[in-house]
Amino acid sequence: MDKRAIPDIIISRLPIYLRALRLMKTVGKLTTSSQELGAAVGISAAQIRKDLSQFDKFGKQGTGYEIAFLIDQLREILNVVRVWDVAVVGMGDMGHALARYQGFSDRGFRVVMVFDSDPAKIGGQAGNFIVRDVKELVTAIRDSGIRLAMLCVPAVAAQEVTHLLVEAGVKAILNYAPINLSVPPGVRVQYLDPSIGLQRMTYYMD
Amino acid sequence: MDKRAIPDIIISRLPIYLRALRLMKTVGKLTTSSQELGAAVGISAAQIRKDLSQFDKFGKQGTGYEIAFLIDQLREILNVVRVWDVAVVGMGDMGHALARYQGFSDRGFRVVMVFDSDPAKIGGQAGNFIVRDVKELVTAIRDSGIRLAMLCVPAVAAQEVTHLLVEAGVKAILNYAPINLSVPPGVRVQYLDPSIGLQRMTYYMD
Repeated sequence: MDKRAIPDIIISRLPIYLRALRLMKTVGKLTTSSQELGAAVGISAAQIRKDLSQFDKFGKQGTGYEIAFLIDQLREILNVVRVWDVAVVGMGDMGHALARYQGFSDRGFRVVMVFDSDPAKIGGQAGNFIVRDVKELVTAIRDSGIRLAMLCVPAVAAQEVTHLLVEAGVKAILNYAPINLSVPPGVRVQYLDPSIGLQRMTYYMD
Repeated sequence: MDKRAIPDIIISRLPIYLRALRLMKTVGKLTTSSQELGAAVGISAAQIRKDLSQFDKFGKQGTGYEIAFLIDQLREILNVVRVWDVAVVGMGDMGHALARYQGFSDRGFRVVMVFDSDPAKIGGQAGNFIVRDVKELVTAIRDSGIRLAMLCVPAVAAQEVTHLLVEAGVKAILNYAPINLSVPPGVRVQYLDPSIGLQRMTYYMD
Protein backbone atom coordinates (compact mmCIF):
# COMPACT_ATOMS: atom_id res chain seq x y z
CA MET A 1 0.00 0.00 0.00
CA ASP A 2 1.33 3.43 -0.91
CA LYS A 3 1.24 5.39 2.31
CA ARG A 4 0.94 8.67 0.47
CA ALA A 5 -2.36 7.53 -0.99
CA ILE A 6 -4.26 8.03 2.26
CA PRO A 7 -4.90 11.68 3.09
CA ASP A 8 -2.89 13.08 5.99
CA ILE A 9 -6.05 14.32 7.68
CA ILE A 10 -7.34 10.73 7.96
CA ILE A 11 -4.03 9.50 9.39
CA SER A 12 -4.15 12.32 11.93
CA ARG A 13 -7.45 10.98 13.30
CA LEU A 14 -6.37 7.34 13.69
CA PRO A 15 -4.33 7.91 16.90
CA ILE A 16 -7.40 9.55 18.42
CA TYR A 17 -9.54 6.50 17.60
CA LEU A 18 -6.82 4.25 19.00
CA ARG A 19 -6.64 6.20 22.26
CA ALA A 20 -10.41 6.06 22.75
CA LEU A 21 -10.56 2.34 21.92
CA ARG A 22 -7.83 1.56 24.44
CA LEU A 23 -9.79 3.41 27.08
CA MET A 24 -12.90 1.38 26.19
CA LYS A 25 -10.87 -1.80 26.50
CA THR A 26 -9.52 -0.67 29.87
CA VAL A 27 -13.03 -0.41 31.26
CA GLY A 28 -13.86 -3.90 29.98
CA LYS A 29 -15.80 -3.21 26.80
CA LEU A 30 -15.50 -5.80 24.01
CA THR A 31 -17.28 -4.25 21.05
CA THR A 32 -18.22 -0.78 19.87
CA SER A 33 -19.96 0.96 16.99
CA SER A 34 -19.00 3.89 14.84
CA GLN A 35 -21.76 5.82 16.66
CA GLU A 36 -20.32 5.07 20.08
CA LEU A 37 -16.72 5.68 19.03
CA GLY A 38 -17.82 8.89 17.33
CA ALA A 39 -19.50 10.12 20.51
CA ALA A 40 -16.34 9.33 22.47
CA VAL A 41 -14.05 11.33 20.20
CA GLY A 42 -16.38 14.04 18.94
CA ILE A 43 -16.26 12.90 15.31
CA SER A 44 -19.27 11.80 13.28
CA ALA A 45 -20.00 8.09 12.88
CA ALA A 46 -20.06 8.55 9.11
CA GLN A 47 -16.59 10.09 9.16
CA ILE A 48 -15.22 7.23 11.25
CA ARG A 49 -16.68 4.61 8.91
CA LYS A 50 -15.25 6.49 5.94
CA ASP A 51 -11.82 6.80 7.58
CA LEU A 52 -11.64 3.10 8.46
CA SER A 53 -12.91 2.07 5.03
CA GLN A 54 -9.65 3.46 3.58
CA PHE A 55 -8.00 0.34 4.92
CA ASP A 56 -8.88 -3.15 3.73
CA LYS A 57 -8.42 -4.57 7.18
CA PHE A 58 -11.65 -3.65 8.83
CA GLY A 59 -14.19 -5.21 6.49
CA LYS A 60 -17.84 -4.25 6.56
CA GLN A 61 -19.41 -3.13 9.76
CA GLY A 62 -22.33 -5.37 10.59
CA THR A 63 -22.76 -5.95 14.29
CA GLY A 64 -20.11 -3.45 15.35
CA TYR A 65 -16.36 -3.46 15.72
CA GLU A 66 -14.51 -5.83 17.98
CA ILE A 67 -12.42 -3.46 20.09
CA ALA A 68 -9.35 -5.67 20.54
CA PHE A 69 -9.20 -6.34 16.80
CA LEU A 70 -9.59 -2.68 15.94
CA ILE A 71 -6.83 -1.76 18.39
CA ASP A 72 -4.48 -4.36 16.90
CA GLN A 73 -5.15 -3.16 13.38
CA LEU A 74 -4.75 0.52 14.22
CA ARG A 75 -1.51 -0.18 16.09
CA GLU A 76 -0.24 -2.00 13.02
CA ILE A 77 -1.31 0.79 10.64
CA LEU A 78 0.24 3.47 12.86
CA ASN A 79 3.39 1.40 13.19
CA VAL A 80 3.35 1.29 16.99
CA VAL A 81 3.28 -2.46 17.52
CA ARG A 82 6.98 -1.98 18.08
CA VAL A 83 8.37 0.44 20.68
CA TRP A 84 10.24 3.44 19.28
CA ASP A 85 13.21 4.95 21.08
CA VAL A 86 12.95 8.71 21.49
CA ALA A 87 15.53 11.35 22.36
CA VAL A 88 14.58 14.52 24.24
CA VAL A 89 16.59 17.68 23.64
CA GLY A 90 16.36 20.60 26.06
CA MET A 91 16.11 19.93 29.79
CA GLY A 92 14.05 22.90 30.89
CA ASP A 93 10.76 22.29 32.70
CA MET A 94 9.08 20.80 29.65
CA GLY A 95 11.97 18.52 28.73
CA HIS A 96 12.17 17.33 32.32
CA ALA A 97 8.45 16.64 32.31
CA LEU A 98 8.81 14.57 29.13
CA ALA A 99 11.85 12.69 30.48
CA ARG A 100 9.70 11.62 33.43
CA TYR A 101 6.39 11.23 31.55
CA GLN A 102 4.66 7.92 32.26
CA GLY A 103 2.14 8.21 29.43
CA PHE A 104 4.32 6.75 26.67
CA SER A 105 4.30 3.21 27.98
CA ASP A 106 2.00 1.03 25.92
CA ARG A 107 1.57 3.68 23.27
CA GLY A 108 4.65 2.80 21.28
CA PHE A 109 7.39 5.05 22.67
CA ARG A 110 10.08 5.24 25.30
CA VAL A 111 12.51 8.01 26.07
CA VAL A 112 16.06 6.62 26.00
CA MET A 113 18.34 9.66 25.92
CA VAL A 114 18.20 13.32 26.97
CA PHE A 115 20.40 16.27 25.99
CA ASP A 116 21.09 19.86 26.93
CA SER A 117 23.75 22.43 26.07
CA ASP A 118 23.95 24.00 29.54
CA PRO A 119 27.13 22.93 31.39
CA ALA A 120 25.15 23.30 34.64
CA LYS A 121 22.71 20.62 33.45
CA ILE A 122 25.03 18.25 31.58
CA GLY A 123 25.87 15.25 33.74
CA GLY A 124 22.91 15.94 36.01
CA GLN A 125 19.84 13.80 36.47
CA ALA A 126 16.54 14.12 34.56
CA GLY A 127 14.10 11.38 35.41
CA ASN A 128 16.07 8.16 35.03
CA PHE A 129 18.56 9.74 32.67
CA ILE A 130 21.88 11.48 32.88
CA VAL A 131 21.73 14.66 30.79
CA ARG A 132 24.17 14.42 27.90
CA ASP A 133 25.98 17.22 26.11
CA VAL A 134 24.23 18.30 22.92
CA LYS A 135 27.70 18.17 21.33
CA GLU A 136 27.44 14.37 21.52
CA LEU A 137 23.96 14.40 20.00
CA VAL A 138 24.74 13.54 16.38
CA THR A 139 27.03 10.64 17.23
CA ALA A 140 24.90 9.29 20.07
CA ILE A 141 21.64 9.36 18.15
CA ARG A 142 23.18 8.00 14.98
CA ASP A 143 24.93 5.16 16.83
CA SER A 144 21.72 4.22 18.63
CA GLY A 145 19.62 4.31 15.48
CA ILE A 146 17.10 6.65 17.13
CA ARG A 147 14.74 8.21 14.62
CA LEU A 148 12.34 10.19 16.82
CA ALA A 149 13.06 13.23 18.94
CA MET A 150 11.17 15.68 21.11
CA LEU A 151 12.50 19.20 20.94
CA CYS A 152 12.10 21.40 24.05
CA VAL A 153 14.84 23.98 23.55
CA PRO A 154 14.17 27.75 23.39
CA ALA A 155 12.84 29.04 20.08
CA VAL A 156 16.14 30.72 19.21
CA ALA A 157 18.00 27.39 19.38
CA ALA A 158 15.35 25.16 17.82
CA GLN A 159 16.36 25.38 14.15
CA GLU A 160 20.02 24.81 14.92
CA VAL A 161 19.24 21.71 16.99
CA THR A 162 16.91 20.54 14.23
CA HIS A 163 19.82 20.56 11.80
CA LEU A 164 21.74 18.34 14.22
CA LEU A 165 18.80 15.96 14.63
CA VAL A 166 18.41 15.67 10.87
CA GLU A 167 22.14 15.07 10.50
CA ALA A 168 21.84 12.32 13.12
CA GLY A 169 19.17 10.55 11.08
CA VAL A 170 16.04 11.63 12.98
CA LYS A 171 12.92 11.41 10.79
CA ALA A 172 10.23 12.67 13.14
CA ILE A 173 10.38 15.64 15.51
CA LEU A 174 7.79 16.55 18.09
CA ASN A 175 8.43 20.26 18.53
CA TYR A 176 7.57 22.08 21.75
CA ALA A 177 9.53 25.20 20.79
CA PRO A 178 7.22 28.00 19.62
CA ILE A 179 8.67 28.23 16.13
CA ASN A 180 8.14 26.60 12.77
CA LEU A 181 11.01 24.33 11.80
CA SER A 182 12.48 23.93 8.38
CA VAL A 183 13.27 20.29 7.59
CA PRO A 184 14.27 18.43 4.44
CA PRO A 185 11.87 16.09 2.61
CA GLY A 186 11.41 12.82 4.45
CA VAL A 187 11.54 14.45 7.88
CA ARG A 188 8.26 15.21 9.66
CA VAL A 189 7.43 17.68 12.40
CA GLN A 190 4.43 17.86 14.72
CA TYR A 191 3.91 20.94 16.84
CA LEU A 192 2.76 21.20 20.45
CA ASP A 193 2.57 24.90 21.30
CA PRO A 194 0.11 25.73 24.09
CA SER A 195 -0.37 29.33 22.89
CA ILE A 196 -1.44 28.05 19.48
CA GLY A 197 -3.94 25.70 21.13
CA LEU A 198 -5.38 28.53 23.22
CA GLN A 199 -5.55 30.98 20.30
CA ARG A 200 -7.52 28.42 18.31
CA MET A 201 -10.22 28.73 20.96
CA THR A 202 -10.17 32.43 21.87
CA TYR A 203 -11.23 33.22 18.31
CA TYR A 204 -14.65 31.85 19.22
CA MET A 205 -14.92 33.72 22.53
CA ASP A 206 -16.44 37.14 23.17
CA MET B 1 -19.43 38.65 11.11
CA ASP B 2 -20.74 35.22 11.97
CA LYS B 3 -17.75 33.40 13.43
CA ARG B 4 -19.19 30.03 12.46
CA ALA B 5 -19.07 31.06 8.80
CA ILE B 6 -15.30 30.66 8.55
CA PRO B 7 -14.17 27.03 8.48
CA ASP B 8 -12.45 25.79 11.62
CA ILE B 9 -9.51 24.54 9.57
CA ILE B 10 -8.75 28.10 8.43
CA ILE B 11 -8.98 29.45 11.98
CA SER B 12 -6.59 26.72 13.10
CA ARG B 13 -3.91 28.04 10.73
CA LEU B 14 -4.13 31.72 11.75
CA PRO B 15 -2.16 31.28 15.02
CA ILE B 16 0.62 29.64 13.00
CA TYR B 17 0.77 32.60 10.64
CA LEU B 18 0.76 34.96 13.61
CA ARG B 19 3.63 33.12 15.30
CA ALA B 20 5.75 33.21 12.14
CA LEU B 21 4.99 36.88 11.52
CA ARG B 22 6.02 37.83 15.06
CA LEU B 23 9.29 36.03 14.54
CA MET B 24 9.85 37.95 11.29
CA LYS B 25 9.15 41.19 13.15
CA THR B 26 11.59 40.20 15.90
CA VAL B 27 14.40 39.91 13.39
CA GLY B 28 13.55 43.34 11.98
CA LYS B 29 11.61 42.50 8.82
CA LEU B 30 8.93 45.01 7.78
CA THR B 31 7.10 43.33 4.92
CA THR B 32 6.53 39.80 3.67
CA SER B 33 4.77 37.94 0.88
CA SER B 34 2.48 34.94 0.88
CA GLN B 35 5.38 33.03 -0.70
CA GLU B 36 7.79 33.91 2.07
CA LEU B 37 5.25 33.34 4.84
CA GLY B 38 4.29 30.06 3.21
CA ALA B 39 7.90 28.90 3.16
CA ALA B 40 8.22 29.81 6.84
CA VAL B 41 5.21 27.78 7.94
CA GLY B 42 5.17 24.98 5.36
CA ILE B 43 1.86 26.00 3.81
CA SER B 44 1.37 26.98 0.17
CA ALA B 45 1.26 30.66 -0.75
CA ALA B 46 -2.07 30.08 -2.48
CA GLN B 47 -3.55 28.60 0.69
CA ILE B 48 -2.35 31.56 2.75
CA ARG B 49 -3.84 34.08 0.32
CA LYS B 50 -7.10 32.13 0.33
CA ASP B 51 -7.18 31.93 4.13
CA LEU B 52 -6.56 35.66 4.56
CA SER B 53 -9.08 36.55 1.86
CA GLN B 54 -11.79 35.18 4.18
CA PHE B 55 -11.40 38.38 6.15
CA ASP B 56 -12.14 41.81 4.70
CA LYS B 57 -9.30 43.36 6.62
CA PHE B 58 -6.34 42.43 4.52
CA GLY B 59 -7.31 43.88 1.17
CA LYS B 60 -5.59 42.84 -2.04
CA GLN B 61 -2.01 41.80 -1.99
CA GLY B 62 -0.03 44.02 -4.30
CA THR B 63 3.45 44.72 -3.05
CA GLY B 64 3.30 42.32 -0.13
CA TYR B 65 1.94 42.39 3.39
CA GLU B 66 3.07 44.87 5.99
CA ILE B 67 4.07 42.60 8.87
CA ALA B 68 3.06 44.89 11.73
CA PHE B 69 -0.37 45.44 10.18
CA LEU B 70 -0.89 41.73 9.57
CA ILE B 71 0.09 40.95 13.15
CA ASP B 72 -2.35 43.53 14.52
CA GLN B 73 -5.18 42.21 12.38
CA LEU B 74 -4.52 38.57 13.23
CA ARG B 75 -4.33 39.38 16.95
CA GLU B 76 -7.67 41.13 16.64
CA ILE B 77 -9.28 38.26 14.72
CA LEU B 78 -7.92 35.68 17.16
CA ASN B 79 -9.06 37.83 20.06
CA VAL B 80 -5.65 38.05 21.72
CA VAL B 81 -5.22 41.82 21.78
CA ARG B 82 -6.37 41.43 25.37
CA VAL B 83 -4.61 39.14 27.83
CA TRP B 84 -6.63 36.11 28.96
CA ASP B 85 -6.32 34.74 32.48
CA VAL B 86 -5.76 31.00 32.54
CA ALA B 87 -6.08 28.43 35.34
CA VAL B 88 -3.91 25.31 35.42
CA VAL B 89 -5.28 22.16 37.05
CA GLY B 90 -2.94 19.32 38.02
CA MET B 91 0.47 20.13 39.43
CA GLY B 92 2.45 17.15 38.18
CA ASP B 93 5.52 17.74 36.03
CA MET B 94 3.51 19.10 33.11
CA GLY B 95 1.36 21.41 35.22
CA HIS B 96 4.46 22.72 36.96
CA ALA B 97 6.10 23.33 33.60
CA LEU B 98 3.05 25.30 32.44
CA ALA B 99 2.86 27.28 35.69
CA ARG B 100 6.44 28.40 35.04
CA TYR B 101 6.22 28.66 31.24
CA GLN B 102 7.56 31.96 29.90
CA GLY B 103 6.15 31.54 26.41
CA PHE B 104 2.68 32.94 27.08
CA SER B 105 3.79 36.52 27.53
CA ASP B 106 2.94 38.60 24.49
CA ARG B 107 0.80 35.84 23.01
CA GLY B 108 -2.38 36.72 24.86
CA PHE B 109 -2.30 34.57 27.99
CA ARG B 110 -1.13 34.54 31.56
CA VAL B 111 -1.49 31.84 34.18
CA VAL B 112 -3.15 33.29 37.27
CA MET B 113 -4.18 30.30 39.37
CA VAL B 114 -3.10 26.66 39.82
CA PHE B 115 -4.90 23.73 41.45
CA ASP B 116 -4.29 20.19 42.62
CA SER B 117 -6.21 17.65 44.70
CA ASP B 118 -3.16 16.20 46.46
CA PRO B 119 -2.92 17.41 50.09
CA ALA B 120 0.86 17.09 49.79
CA LYS B 121 0.83 19.67 46.99
CA ILE B 122 -1.93 22.04 48.15
CA GLY B 123 -0.43 25.13 49.76
CA GLY B 124 2.93 24.45 48.16
CA GLN B 125 4.68 26.55 45.55
CA ALA B 126 4.44 26.09 41.76
CA GLY B 127 6.25 28.81 39.87
CA ASN B 128 4.96 32.06 41.35
CA PHE B 129 1.76 30.45 42.58
CA ILE B 130 0.50 28.77 45.70
CA VAL B 131 -1.23 25.53 44.73
CA ARG B 132 -4.93 25.73 45.61
CA ASP B 133 -7.26 22.90 46.52
CA VAL B 134 -9.32 21.69 43.58
CA LYS B 135 -12.30 21.82 45.97
CA GLU B 136 -12.08 25.63 45.69
CA LEU B 137 -11.89 25.49 41.90
CA VAL B 138 -15.49 26.23 40.97
CA THR B 139 -15.82 29.21 43.30
CA ALA B 140 -12.36 30.61 42.64
CA ILE B 141 -12.63 30.41 38.84
CA ARG B 142 -16.18 31.72 38.77
CA ASP B 143 -15.36 34.64 41.06
CA SER B 144 -12.34 35.56 38.95
CA GLY B 145 -14.20 35.33 35.67
CA ILE B 146 -11.56 32.98 34.26
CA ARG B 147 -12.71 31.29 31.08
CA LEU B 148 -9.62 29.35 29.98
CA ALA B 149 -7.99 26.39 31.65
CA MET B 150 -5.16 23.97 31.02
CA LEU B 151 -5.82 20.47 32.24
CA CYS B 152 -2.83 18.38 33.34
CA VAL B 153 -4.44 15.83 35.64
CA PRO B 154 -4.20 12.06 35.09
CA ALA B 155 -6.54 10.61 32.47
CA VAL B 156 -8.77 8.98 35.11
CA ALA B 157 -9.51 12.35 36.73
CA ALA B 158 -9.78 14.47 33.59
CA GLN B 159 -13.50 14.15 32.86
CA GLU B 160 -14.46 14.82 36.46
CA VAL B 161 -12.34 17.98 36.60
CA THR B 162 -13.77 19.01 33.23
CA HIS B 163 -17.26 18.97 34.75
CA LEU B 164 -16.00 21.31 37.48
CA LEU B 165 -14.37 23.63 34.95
CA VAL B 166 -17.56 23.81 32.92
CA GLU B 167 -19.57 24.46 36.08
CA ALA B 168 -17.15 27.28 36.87
CA GLY B 169 -17.81 28.93 33.52
CA VAL B 170 -14.69 27.84 31.62
CA LYS B 171 -15.26 27.93 27.86
CA ALA B 172 -11.93 26.70 26.52
CA ILE B 173 -9.82 23.81 27.81
CA LEU B 174 -6.33 22.94 26.67
CA ASN B 175 -6.15 19.26 27.57
CA TYR B 176 -2.84 17.51 28.29
CA ALA B 177 -4.52 14.40 29.71
CA PRO B 178 -4.47 11.51 27.21
CA ILE B 179 -8.24 11.20 26.97
CA ASN B 180 -11.05 12.73 24.93
CA LEU B 181 -13.23 15.01 26.99
CA SER B 182 -16.96 15.32 26.77
CA VAL B 183 -18.08 18.96 27.00
CA PRO B 184 -21.40 20.73 26.43
CA PRO B 185 -22.01 22.97 23.40
CA GLY B 186 -20.22 26.29 23.72
CA VAL B 187 -17.17 24.78 25.40
CA ARG B 188 -14.11 24.01 23.29
CA VAL B 189 -11.23 21.62 23.84
CA GLN B 190 -7.82 21.46 22.21
CA TYR B 191 -5.63 18.44 22.78
CA LEU B 192 -1.88 18.27 23.37
CA ASP B 193 -0.96 14.59 23.71
CA PRO B 194 2.64 13.80 22.79
CA SER B 195 1.87 10.16 21.94
CA ILE B 196 -0.74 11.30 19.41
CA GLY B 197 1.81 13.64 17.84
CA LEU B 198 4.38 10.86 17.59
CA GLN B 199 1.89 8.31 16.22
CA ARG B 200 0.94 10.77 13.48
CA MET B 201 4.53 10.50 12.27
CA THR B 202 5.40 6.83 12.84
CA TYR B 203 2.69 5.91 10.32
CA TYR B 204 5.00 7.22 7.62
CA MET B 205 8.11 5.47 8.92
CA ASP B 206 9.44 2.04 7.95
